[in-house]
Amino acid sequence: MTNRNVSVQPAAGRAVEDQEVEIVERKGLGHPDSICDGIAETVSQALAQTYLDRVGKVLHYNTDETQLVAGNAAPAFGGGEVQEPIYLLIVGRATKEYEGTKIPAETIALEAARDYLEANFPHLDVGTDVIVDVRLGEGSGDLQEVFGEEGSVPMANDTSYGVGHAPLSETEQIVLNVERRLNGEYSDDNPAVGQDIKVMGKREGDRIDVTVAAAAVDAHVGGLDEYREVVAGVREFVGEVAGEYTDREVTVHVNTADDYDEGAIYLTTTGTSAEQGDDGSVGRGNRANGLITPNRPMSMEATSGKNPVNHIGKIYNLLSTEIAQSVVAEVDGIRQLQIRLLSQIGSPIDEPHVADATLITEDGVSVADIESEVVAAIDEELANVTDVTRRVIDGELSTF
Amino acid sequence: MTNRNVSVQPAAGRAVEDQEVEIVERKGLGHPDSICDGIAETVSQALAQTYLDRVGKVLHYNTDETQLVAGNAAPAFGGGEVQEPIYLLIVGRATKEYEGTKIPAETIALEAARDYLEANFPHLDVGTDVIVDVRLGEGSGDLQEVFGEEGSVPMANDTSYGVGHAPLSETEQIVLNVERRLNGEYSDDNPAVGQDIKVMGKREGDRIDVTVAAAAVDAHVGGLDEYREVVAGVREFVGEVAGEYTDREVTVHVNTADDYDEGAIYLTTTGTSAEQGDDGSVGRGNRANGLITPNRPMSMEATSGKNPVNHIGKIYNLLSTEIAQSVVAEVDGIRQLQIRLLSQIGSPIDEPHVADATLITEDGVSVADIESEVVAAIDEELANVTDVTRRVIDGELSTF
Amino acid sequence: MTNRNVSVQPAAGRAVEDQEVEIVERKGLGHPDSICDGIAETVSQALAQTYLDRVGKVLHYNTDETQLVAGNAAPAFGGGEVQEPIYLLIVGRATKEYEGTKIPAETIALEAARDYLEANFPHLDVGTDVIVDVRLGEGSGDLQEVFGEEGSVPMANDTSYGVGHAPLSETEQIVLNVERRLNGEYSDDNPAVGQDIKVMGKREGDRIDVTVAAAAVDAHVGGLDEYREVVAGVREFVGEVAGEYTDREVTVHVNTADDYDEGAIYLTTTGTSAEQGDDGSVGRGNRANGLITPNRPMSMEATSGKNPVNHIGKIYNLLSTEIAQSVVAEVDGIRQLQIRLLSQIGSPIDEPHVADATLITEDGVSVADIESEVVAAIDEELANVTDVTRRVIDGELSTF
Amino acid sequence: MTNRNVSVQPAAGRAVEDQEVEIVERKGLGHPDSICDGIAETVSQALAQTYLDRVGKVLHYNTDETQLVAGNAAPAFGGGEVQEPIYLLIVGRATKEYEGTKIPAETIALEAARDYLEANFPHLDVGTDVIVDVRLGEGSGDLQEVFGEEGSVPMANDTSYGVGHAPLSETEQIVLNVERRLNGEYSDDNPAVGQDIKVMGKREGDRIDVTVAAAAVDAHVGGLDEYREVVAGVREFVGEVAGEYTDREVTVHVNTADDYDEGAIYLTTTGTSAEQGDDGSVGRGNRANGLITPNRPMSMEATSGKNPVNHIGKIYNLLSTEIAQSVVAEVDGIRQLQIRLLSQIGSPIDEPHVADATLITEDGVSVADIESEVVAAIDEELANVTDVTRRVIDGELSTF
Repeated sequence: MTNRNVSVQPAAGRAVEDQEVEIVERKGLGHPDSICDGIAETVSQALAQTYLDRVGKVLHYNTDETQLVAGNAAPAFGGGEVQEPIYLLIVGRATKEYEGTKIPAETIALEAARDYLEANFPHLDVGTDVIVDVRLGEGSGDLQEVFGEEGSVPMANDTSYGVGHAPLSETEQIVLNVERRLNGEYSDDNPAVGQDIKVMGKREGDRIDVTVAAAAVDAHVGGLDEYREVVAGVREFVGEVAGEYTDREVTVHVNTADDYDEGAIYLTTTGTSAEQGDDGSVGRGNRANGLITPNRPMSMEATSGKNPVNHIGKIYNLLSTEIAQSVVAEVDGIRQLQIRLLSQIGSPIDEPHVADATLITEDGVSVADIESEVVAAIDEELANVTDVTRRVIDGELSTF
Repeated sequence: MTNRNVSVQPAAGRAVEDQEVEIVERKGLGHPDSICDGIAETVSQALAQTYLDRVGKVLHYNTDETQLVAGNAAPAFGGGEVQEPIYLLIVGRATKEYEGTKIPAETIALEAARDYLEANFPHLDVGTDVIVDVRLGEGSGDLQEVFGEEGSVPMANDTSYGVGHAPLSETEQIVLNVERRLNGEYSDDNPAVGQDIKVMGKREGDRIDVTVAAAAVDAHVGGLDEYREVVAGVREFVGEVAGEYTDREVTVHVNTADDYDEGAIYLTTTGTSAEQGDDGSVGRGNRANGLITPNRPMSMEATSGKNPVNHIGKIYNLLSTEIAQSVVAEVDGIRQLQIRLLSQIGSPIDEPHVADATLITEDGVSVADIESEVVAAIDEELANVTDVTRRVIDGELSTF
Repeated sequence: MTNRNVSVQPAAGRAVEDQEVEIVERKGLGHPDSICDGIAETVSQALAQTYLDRVGKVLHYNTDETQLVAGNAAPAFGGGEVQEPIYLLIVGRATKEYEGTKIPAETIALEAARDYLEANFPHLDVGTDVIVDVRLGEGSGDLQEVFGEEGSVPMANDTSYGVGHAPLSETEQIVLNVERRLNGEYSDDNPAVGQDIKVMGKREGDRIDVTVAAAAVDAHVGGLDEYREVVAGVREFVGEVAGEYTDREVTVHVNTADDYDEGAIYLTTTGTSAEQGDDGSVGRGNRANGLITPNRPMSMEATSGKNPVNHIGKIYNLLSTEIAQSVVAEVDGIRQLQIRLLSQIGSPIDEPHVADATLITEDGVSVADIESEVVAAIDEELANVTDVTRRVIDGELSTF
Repeated sequence: MTNRNVSVQPAAGRAVEDQEVEIVERKGLGHPDSICDGIAETVSQALAQTYLDRVGKVLHYNTDETQLVAGNAAPAFGGGEVQEPIYLLIVGRATKEYEGTKIPAETIALEAARDYLEANFPHLDVGTDVIVDVRLGEGSGDLQEVFGEEGSVPMANDTSYGVGHAPLSETEQIVLNVERRLNGEYSDDNPAVGQDIKVMGKREGDRIDVTVAAAAVDAHVGGLDEYREVVAGVREFVGEVAGEYTDREVTVHVNTADDYDEGAIYLTTTGTSAEQGDDGSVGRGNRANGLITPNRPMSMEATSGKNPVNHIGKIYNLLSTEIAQSVVAEVDGIRQLQIRLLSQIGSPIDEPHVADATLITEDGVSVADIESEVVAAIDEELANVTDVTRRVIDGELSTF
């Protein structure tokens, strides 16, 4: 039988939900760091898919280093303009030839990036508002071997670890969903709301402050009054969304840095602060679960853009979150679950060196009561580790 | 009365048409040097028009330095691909702010370049096959003054000269029109013919060799037989076009570097050799009249991209050709006319330091017979010097 | 009296030193991520000092985004060569003009980067092995205000937090000092050891594995036998260093990925893997205390390159570590101390919203026994918050 | 016997020396276009030498496309500074691997460029005042064959031509030597004179105007009075130099665009206008003989940076000048000689399609008198065509 090294233990201390102060942050889709995460990951997907299509397996690559240099813009009510373009440099490694088959890694990367930007940033004119450049070198010799053969589980090539948790606290749910729904249903109906939305949740006891910085899009805002309406609309919507996830008292703050008297408002031409003064890069923002959670252990790993076949840090960060969610869904009585996976160099990645589950149970349930269920659920998830790779390539798993 | 300093003199030696050996060359629309010329000039037009629209006059700028770094491609019958993108760097100077009005010079340049490429290169996917980057700095302080005020004639700020001639020799007409019509009517009907067409005409006595290098577009060429047909089609068309301009014996050579046995043919994915190995820059190819004519005096001036309001080298090169054509059209008995304009620093550009016409008359006509007509015609053209500026901005005058 | 909001509480759970598994990592001076951290921070220091020298206060800037694109090298015993240069792009924002005084931010950045590379990388030829490029834009308008006036404490402009701890665990001490001393005294005497040294410490119970990946410098390694000696020398030295910090059983592994039979060894020309295949960027490696410590809470903040006057995340991360060290040095009976600082937008940064100390005391000491001492020590450190800024500018505090 | 196709004929019209108006221009060493020419050629030499050293023959390369983007500077009496660096992009093609031997083309290029700048531009700090970047791709497949085998004469691979003349007219001698000696002996003793020196000579009848624009170096100029002295010193020196080459009346103008009242003077920090506003590229300035001579036929060929083994345009332009000088030195009675070489595709380059000498003889000498001597002299030079290649690689022949 496979040795998964799964261990289960009670957590010391209080559940995050019970701690006095909780801070949660999410950099939305249009934040410069998230733009880089998104491009790095979309380029990764395109390369992986191309390798599969052309040579039947994923070759060595790594595209986790996109750099964004902010532009310069002059937003104006009714429609301003970008004056100096954003500069976006896609950086990484890729195999460009394999047994006689050429892989046009750089043009694939450019196309993926362009498609991503056009699909997600309706107010950004790719090619004039943003220059997309690329530098994909060859990897170091000893890593250019092939991996990802059908049916096999890759070996861990590094000591790396991943950490995930479930369920999300109320504040986490609010922060995550406020951004997603603002950047989804809400902006569909309200084009005046741009993609650069940063959400900070701070809970002190039973009071939750949700602070949203949302870029307004100048072409859809005729004047200061309309801008006020945009802000008010966001505030109301955020309040409603938050109410779906908590009974606590919620206060919503939107664009608190505005100073109407000085005409200082969060107005943009493109919907992102990358147009003016905010640089960005990969791995500097959200963790693999979409959040920054100082109250929880986090991995430093930049997940976006990494090769999902054998980059153990990427796989274990995504997998640990998947496992946590799955276990909580299947096993009753869990109030807080944290999964940590530690790789063993040279062993198959479905056999981690350590796979520990740290639990806080609900009242009336002991860890012993559910330990075997938890172990079984984890074991099952680990057995399907290559599913994570497939889902990443298919774009089903978000990395930021 | 205005002092134009016009002088007329007979040419020494034989007319080009009568010389034993004549060489004429044209780098077509899709040659890497011409791509740079075209982008430099289209960016210049866009900037000039923007200045006119926003501040009522053309401000200081100069965009005559586009650099193209070739890509890497794998053309293949039926459709290949670009593997490493072409890199295009637009370089120059531009005024970005004038009395409080901001001019987004870099985004204007990017947009103009993209539009130009998309309009002229149907097989080139802008954004994936080619990266367009831009570096437009501010000019040196003492040149940032404004020029181009309504109604005034600018002063020459440099000692510069221009040279033009008319009429074109038969070989010149053939070279110019072969390229233009291949890149016009012919490629409209024959998408297998790309934009990178280089034409060399060599006349020895009464024998003219027209050598054409024409890039084929792989998506429209199914195999070697089809490629042969493409070449044969071009050869036939070129022969027909040449026949319209001469009664001399014409031999047409197309893609002479091909070696069918070794599979070495001129096949491209994008229609230009910039995709693989041929770099380019501004001012390295055709002169302002569209030709390279070693048998004639030529100016070194890179005309494309220069400011058409006060860049005396650009204006005088275009104007000298315009004058030559106009004089030949209006005055009978001219077999060959060369116009040379030399500026006088500090004087209005319609008052050149030297404006000399060097003539070869037809049999039975003496220079004295037509001298006064020629002077009058030149004088009239010089009086309308600012027309050249307007027509350049409107894109009516080609610069390469 | 100033309100510091200091709270002291006992930690839940076991001290890190007592946990079953502990992982600690340090990316050494020459790791591509650390190269970026180092350049970002040295550029920051140079800019801050220039602002002080020229206008008497630090103006707005942020240079926390250096991107490194790996080169290509052919190391060889006795001396190989770099074939494609490393490309290093310094990215950020800087004020370039203030009340008529110009600040040449980009040339300052280039000079600082060059000096840093030359001082720290004796085997890297700046200008041929590495291209240093720079793109420093202006910041967003509402941030270009001046800060850092003499004597004042800046206001927090963001909700940010920092976390630090003391004392270091044995494993942490080993990891930190192994790298520092290899890159210090050891490489001074052993030029065959390059700057790219990565150290991973893994403690399971009382067994500590120290895994070192150390780039050898080809010019100083004549052959495989000499390489083996280099590796053996490092192993011995690391064992000695480790022994100074623990009585636990230590096993040292050096360059475990080597395969002598296949000739796969960790040989470099420049002393860093950036020469071949390893890209890097700021904030992706060590935290502000020089370590990556999954067993401890960590901040996501990229500390290097940030403005040390008002960037609250940078200040609080450095300060929390400083406080923890200072308190542990001054107050007896502390086994483990974690300091967390949370800013209050709009309040002076010496008055954090939350400043909590989480303690594990030594046997026989209760939190209550030392609480007032701890509070007083923290309070004193907070009062001197601007010292952190000064020391950062002077280069006295390391940020990675 | 080898067929050189040499023909000799009398020139129609007057010698340039006898024409009413003559214009001659030279862009000095530090002109942005000349900087690019110089770097392109020095990179070419370094690559050629490396190929010879490593594989015994020169492989395919072409580095004739350096692009310079001007910086931004704030010169000031006593010493100013560069505020935004000059950006220099070396562009071209190079063979990077040949039968297992790797050629580090990009690092060779960077090193050659750095050495060249440091040797020639004492006031320019390479690495901070100027960023040197490089993009050397592989050439197109069918050109990657090897050439330059010992003892063989390469075949012409293109229809190309070169043109040269001798002796230089007085005005040409003045323009050429004024710049060379200002940038030689004079600036050695006068560090206040920078490298960017542009010389324009205009002769009308027997009056010669020499107009010099010479960048002053601010660190060596304490104030306006010293600047005036610098200008006066240059004027005097130029007058003396000019007097060595002519008995005609010479008027010298130095820095005529200066306006002392407005403080507009030609002061620089680095000795070149590239620091502020003047971009540059290869092949836009001097022809292969170091001059721009509108009164003479000129080739459009950008000579600098081209491969001297088989690039027929480069070889023939250098060779035609060499031949003209050699013939004039050996054969008495020649007042003006122009040599034109036209290649024959597929024939050895020492057997041009056309090699014609156009002569104006001195009084009392007829073309017939010296024709056989001229033919013999040309024939001998053609026989030694590969000498040109060797001398170019050794840096003995200037290309601009």
